[in-house]
Amino acid sequence: MTESRRPLKGRKLGDRRVRVERPHAAFFRYSPEGQLVAKESASAPRTPAGRALAKARSILFGRPLSIHEEITERLSKKKALAIFSSDPISSSAYATEEILRVLVLAGAGALLLSIPIAIAIALLIAIVSTSYRQEVYAYPSGGGDYAVARRNLPMLTSLIVAGALLVDYVMTVAVSTASAVEQVISAVPQAADIRLVIGVGAIILITLGNLRGLRESGNLFAIPTYLFVGSAMLMIAIGLFRILVNGEHAAPPEPLPGAPSSLQLVGVLLIIKAFASGSVALTGTEAIANGVPAFKPPEPKNAATTLTAVAILLAILFIGITFIADTFGVVPLDNPPRTVISQVAAITYGHGSIFFYLFQTFTALILFLAANTSYNAFPRLGAILAKDGYMPRQFSFRGDRLAFTSGILILSAAAITLLVVFGGRTTALVPLYSVGVFIAFTIGQTGMVLHWRRERPAGWRRRLSINAFGAVLTGFVFIVVLVAKAPESLLVAIIIPILVGMMLFIRRQYEASNRELSVRPDVVVPTPHREERVLVPVPGITRAVVQAINVGRSIAPNVTAVLISDEPDEASLIRTRWERQLPDVPLVIVESPYRALVAPLLAYLDVLDKARPAALEAPITFIVIPEYVARSWWERILYNQSAKRLRAALLGRPHTVVVNVPYRREDPDPAEEAEHPPK
Amino acid sequence: MTESRRPLKGRKLGDRRVRVERPHAAFFRYSPEGQLVAKESASAPRTPAGRALAKARSILFGRPLSIHEEITERLSKKKALAIFSSDPISSSAYATEEILRVLVLAGAGALLLSIPIAIAIALLIAIVSTSYRQEVYAYPSGGGDYAVARRNLPMLTSLIVAGALLVDYVMTVAVSTASAVEQVISAVPQAADIRLVIGVGAIILITLGNLRGLRESGNLFAIPTYLFVGSAMLMIAIGLFRILVNGEHAAPPEPLPGAPSSLQLVGVLLIIKAFASGSVALTGTEAIANGVPAFKPPEPKNAATTLTAVAILLAILFIGITFIADTFGVVPLDNPPRTVISQVAAITYGHGSIFFYLFQTFTALILFLAANTSYNAFPRLGAILAKDGYMPRQFSFRGDRLAFTSGILILSAAAITLLVVFGGRTTALVPLYSVGVFIAFTIGQTGMVLHWRRERPAGWRRRLSINAFGAVLTGFVFIVVLVAKAPESLLVAIIIPILVGMMLFIRRQYEASNRELSVRPDVVVPTPHREERVLVPVPGITRAVVQAINVGRSIAPNVTAVLISDEPDEASLIRTRWERQLPDVPLVIVESPYRALVAPLLAYLDVLDKARPAALEAPITFIVIPEYVARSWWERILYNQSAKRLRAALLGRPHTVVVNVPYRREDPDPAEEAEHPPK
Repeated sequence: MTESRRPLKGRKLGDRRVRVERPHAAFFRYSPEGQLVAKESASAPRTPAGRALAKARSILFGRPLSIHEEITERLSKKKALAIFSSDPISSSAYATEEILRVLVLAGAGALLLSIPIAIAIALLIAIVSTSYRQEVYAYPSGGGDYAVARRNLPMLTSLIVAGALLVDYVMTVAVSTASAVEQVISAVPQAADIRLVIGVGAIILITLGNLRGLRESGNLFAIPTYLFVGSAMLMIAIGLFRILVNGEHAAPPEPLPGAPSSLQLVGVLLIIKAFASGSVALTGTEAIANGVPAFKPPEPKNAATTLTAVAILLAILFIGITFIADTFGVVPLDNPPRTVISQVAAITYGHGSIFFYLFQTFTALILFLAANTSYNAFPRLGAILAKDGYMPRQFSFRGDRLAFTSGILILSAAAITLLVVFGGRTTALVPLYSVGVFIAFTIGQTGMVLHWRRERPAGWRRRLSINAFGAVLTGFVFIVVLVAKAPESLLVAIIIPILVGMMLFIRRQYEASNRELSVRPDVVVPTPHREERVLVPVPGITRAVVQAINVGRSIAPNVTAVLISDEPDEASLIRTRWERQLPDVPLVIVESPYRALVAPLLAYLDVLDKARPAALEAPITFIVIPEYVARSWWERILYNQSAKRLRAALLGRPHTVVVNVPYRREDPDPAEEAEHPPK
Repeated sequence: MTESRRPLKGRKLGDRRVRVERPHAAFFRYSPEGQLVAKESASAPRTPAGRALAKARSILFGRPLSIHEEITERLSKKKALAIFSSDPISSSAYATEEILRVLVLAGAGALLLSIPIAIAIALLIAIVSTSYRQEVYAYPSGGGDYAVARRNLPMLTSLIVAGALLVDYVMTVAVSTASAVEQVISAVPQAADIRLVIGVGAIILITLGNLRGLRESGNLFAIPTYLFVGSAMLMIAIGLFRILVNGEHAAPPEPLPGAPSSLQLVGVLLIIKAFASGSVALTGTEAIANGVPAFKPPEPKNAATTLTAVAILLAILFIGITFIADTFGVVPLDNPPRTVISQVAAITYGHGSIFFYLFQTFTALILFLAANTSYNAFPRLGAILAKDGYMPRQFSFRGDRLAFTSGILILSAAAITLLVVFGGRTTALVPLYSVGVFIAFTIGQTGMVLHWRRERPAGWRRRLSINAFGAVLTGFVFIVVLVAKAPESLLVAIIIPILVGMMLFIRRQYEASNRELSVRPDVVVPTPHREERVLVPVPGITRAVVQAINVGRSIAPNVTAVLISDEPDEASLIRTRWERQLPDVPLVIVESPYRALVAPLLAYLDVLDKARPAALEAPITFIVIPEYVARSWWERILYNQSAKRLRAALLGRPHTVVVNVPYRREDPDPAEEAEHPPK
C-alpha cells in the first residue's frame, strides 16, 4: 500500500494546477484562468428524498433560475397583473368596511358620506399610482422606495423606508389573513369560535409552503386573482343593475332629530377619521415599483401599464362595493362577524346561493395570496439590506434555502403575534397597516422630487410637480392616519425607530469588524514559521480516536492525547491499554473529581502555556476532536454533545485551532493495517 | 524574530515530557506517572461576572463539593429530615381532600368513612416505610428502587422502575405546584382567575433557580418544612382541643332516606376508590432510600431513623387533618377553590386571622419545596441511567452545569404541559401521580425479596416476609389505583412503556456504535502515511483569512483558497489583489449564479476527488474555515453563519477534516511582518 502512494508526488497528477483546472464537467462550466461557474447540478439535492422533492417542486413551480437565465422567464403583463395585484386589489375586500365602521358611530345618516370619501380615496389612488409610474420609469432596476431614498436622500430616510416596508410586509400578512378568516366566517358563522385557530393555521401553512420552496408562480397564482376580479366585477354589475334599472334600495334611514347639527359638529373630524380608515385601500400599490425587473422588456413601459390597470381595477372595485353597500344600507356586523363585502355578495348573488359561497371562497383565496406576497418581498428586502450591511449577512445569500428560512420565520412569528394580540380582528390591525405604507409613499415621492431636480430630463418640471404633489398629499395622509388612528398607529411610530436603530447598530458592527479584519493592500503576506502542538482529547480507545490521532500526526509529529476522567480506576486501565496500542503517543490523564469535562481541559491548556518561558512566541495549538457522524436527528442528540461543548469553549482561546475529525460508519478501520504483536 | 524561534526545537523546553509533567500548580494536584487531578480552581468561572455569580452562590448554597470531599458535608438527621421530608410530608396537604372528593359523591353520610380509610392508608405508610427501612440497610449506597431492581431483577423491570420514577418526578412538580397554587387561592380567592399563570410562573422560577445552580441546601430549605410541620401540629392540637374538650362539631349530616342501602350497594367500590385516591399520601416516601449516602455515618441507621420519623409525622398529620375535617363537615369547594386543609386552618386558626394566612403561606412554601426536590432527583436518576447507557451520554456529566440543563428543561416542560392540560387542578393530576409511585414500590419490594433469598443473612426469613408483604400490598394498591382511577391512570400505563422503549433504543444505539468504534485490543496502531490537501474557503482578503491560510500552510504546504461568489466583477478584483498579496497560494474562484454557497463548494470537492485516478487512495482534505470570534449573543447572529453551515455540510464527507481557525480581535495582524513591495 505504501509503495502505491509514494510515487504520486512525482506524477503529473500530483501537480495541483492540473487537478484544479480540469475537474469533471458534471457540475461546472469553465471560464478562463482557473475560474469555474457552478451549473444547476452543483446545487442539486444529494439525497433521493431531496431529489424527489426538487422534481415535484419544479413541476409545480418551474425549475430554479440562475441570474443569467432570468431574462428568458420575464413576466407578461397578464401574469404580472396576477402576481403583483393580489396585494393592492385584495384591499378592496376590507377598505369600504373600515370607512363604514367610523361613519356608523355618527348614526345611520352619516353612512351616506362613504361615497364621497371613497371617491376621494380613489383620487388618491390615481395620484399615487401616477407618481409611481414616474418612479418605475426613473428606476427600472427595481427596489422601489428604498432604492429611491437610498439614491436621493440621506441614509437615515432610506432606513426609515426600509423599516416602514418591513412593518408593512408583516401587516400585509396579519391583515390579509385576518380579513380572509372573516370572509370564511361570514359564509360559515360556526367558524367564528376558532377564528384565531384558522388564522394562525393559515399562516403556518403559508410558512411551511414557503420554507419548502413555494415561490410566486404566475401560472398557479394568477387563478384566484382573476377569479376574484371577475366575480367581484360581476357582483358590482348585478348590484348596479338592480339599483339603477330595478330601482331597488334599502329603506332610507330615519333622520335622527338633531342629527344634522351633530353631523355638522363632528363632521370634519369624522370625515377625516373615515378617510384615514379607508386609506388602507392604497396598501400594496408600491408592489409593482419594487418588481420592475421581473417584467418583459420594455420593462418600465409594461410595468407602468400594469400599474395603471391595477389602479383602475382597484378604484372600480372600491367605489362599486362602497356604492352598493351604501345603497342597501349595509353596516359591518360583529357577532358573528359578517364583512361588508360578504353582505354585498349576499344581496347581489343571494344569501346561501352557490355563487355567494364561491365568491367568499375567491375573496378568502386572494387575501391569502396577498399574505403570501410578503413572503417574497420580506426576504428580498432583507437581502438588499444585508448587501448594504444593515441586516445580518446570512440574509443576503438568496440562493441557499437556509438564507430565506430566518426571514420567513421572523415574518411569520411577527404576523402571528400581531394576529393573536389583536384577536384576529381586521379593523383592530388596520391602523398599524396604513401608517407604515404612507411613510414609504411620502419618502419615496420626496426622493423622486430630488431625483428630478438633479437629473433634469425633458419635462422634469412637470414630473417634479407630480411627485411633489404626491409627496405632500401622502405626507398629509400619513399625519392624518397617525393622529386619527392613535394610539394604535403610534405603535408603528415606535417600532420603526427601533428597527432603524437595529439596522444602524448592525452596520456599525460590520464596519468595526471590517476595520479590524482589514489587511493593508500593499503587504505581501509571508509564510510563517510557527511551532505547532497537537492535543487530542480522548474518551478511551475507539476507531474515531485512532483516526483523530492519525489526523493529528499528519498535522504535526508532536501529538499528545488527553483523557479527562472522573473514575481513576477506569483511567488507569485505559492507560495500560493505550501504552500497548499507541506506544508513540503520550497520554496525559486529567482526573476531574468535580466531574467537569471542559473546564479541566481549558485549565490544562493554560498550564501548558504558562510552563513556557514568556519570551517565546506561543505555538499554534491544534485541538483535534474525534466526532461520530450522526445520520439522523436523534443520533445528533446521542452523540458529540461533548465535542460541541469543547468546540464552543475552545473557539475563544488565542493561538488555538479546533479540528473536527468526523468518523463515519463507512470509513475503514484506521487500525486495520496494524502490526500485530508477536504471539 | 525568526531566529528567536528557531533554536527552540533544540532546547530542553522543546521536550514535551518536561512540559506535560510539571505544569503550573494553580489548577492541578500531581499524581505519579503524568497523571493530574483537577482542583476546584480548574472548574472556576473565568469571567468577572461568572466569578461574582459563583461567589454569591457559594455564600447562599455552600461551595461545590468534589467526590473526595462529600463525606465531610454529610447531612445530620435534622437537616436530612428537612430536605427529604418536604416531598412526603407535603402530600398531607391534599391527600385528605382526595378521599373526601370521592366520598362526597355518595352523599354527606359517606364522609364519615374518611377516618377508617385514612387509618388504613396510615397503616400502609407504616408497612411501606418498614419495607424501605430494610432497603436502606441492604443498599446503603443509595439509588433506591432502581438500584434494587437493577441488582436483583431482569433489566426490563429496572427500566420500568426508572420510567415510573421519571414520571413520578414530573408529577411531583405538577401536583405540588397545583396544590400550592390552590392553597394561595384558598387564602386569596381573587387569584383564582390567574391560577395557571401563578402555577406556570412558579415552575419557571424554580427552573431558573435550578439552572442558576440552586441545589438542595439544608440550611435554607429546612425552614419552610419545620414551619409547616410546626404550624400543622399546632392546628391539629387546637382542633382536637375544641373537639374533645369543648365538644364542638358541625351539625350531623341529615341521613338521606334510603342512603344506608345505597351506601351498602356502592359501598365497597366507593371505599376502594376513596382509598385509591388517598393513597397519594404515600408519594415521596421513596425519597430517603434514594439518598442514603447523603447522611452522616452510620448512614443506614441515620437514614432509617429519619425515615421512621417522616412516616410518623406524615401519619399524624394525615389522620389529624382528616379527623378534624370530618368532624367539622368540611368538603372540598371548587368555585373558587378552597382546599380542605385551608378550611381546617380557617376553622382552627379563625378565617382571616394572621395565623390562617401564615399557615397558608407555609403550606404553599412546603409544596413549592416539594416540587423543587424533583429538580435534584430527576437529573440524578438521569445521570445513573446515562452511565448505564439508557439515556443520552450528556446526562452523565454531573459536574458541568450544562449536563443538568437538559434534564431541568425537560422536567419543567413536561410539568408545565401537564399543569396546563389538566387546568392546574390537583385532583385531576393525582390519578397519574399514584400509579407511577406504586409501580416503583412494588418492583422495589419484589427486588428486596429476591435480595434476601440470595443473601440469606441472619433473620432473612423475617425480613423477606416483611418485604414480600410490602410487595403484595403495594402491588394490590397499584392495581386498585390503576382500575379505580381509569382512564387517567392508564395514561401512565402508556407513558412508562414508551419511556422504557426509548431507553432500550438508546442503549441499542450506543451498543451498536461501540461495536462499530471498537478497536481490537491486540493491534498496535501504525503511523499512517497519507497525502494531505488543504482548502481554505475565503470571502475575500481579511486578517481572519490570512490567519486561516497560515494555519493551513502549517498543516501542509499544499494550500488552495476557494472563493465562492455570485458577483464575477468583484471576484476578479479580489483575484488581482490576491495574486499580489498571497502570490504563493493559488486561488480558485467558483462562480455561483444560483447564489448558493455550500452546494458549489461540495461540488468542487467532488470534482477534485473524481479527477484523481480511482486506484489512488483519497487524500485527507483539510477544510480550513476562518471564523470571527463572537463576544456576545448578537455577534453570534451577525458572524460565522456561513462557517456554521459549511461545517455542518462537510462533517458527513469521507476523508474530510474541518479546521476552525478563530480570529480574535486581540490577535496580532498575521500579515504584520509582511514584506512590503519595493516602491
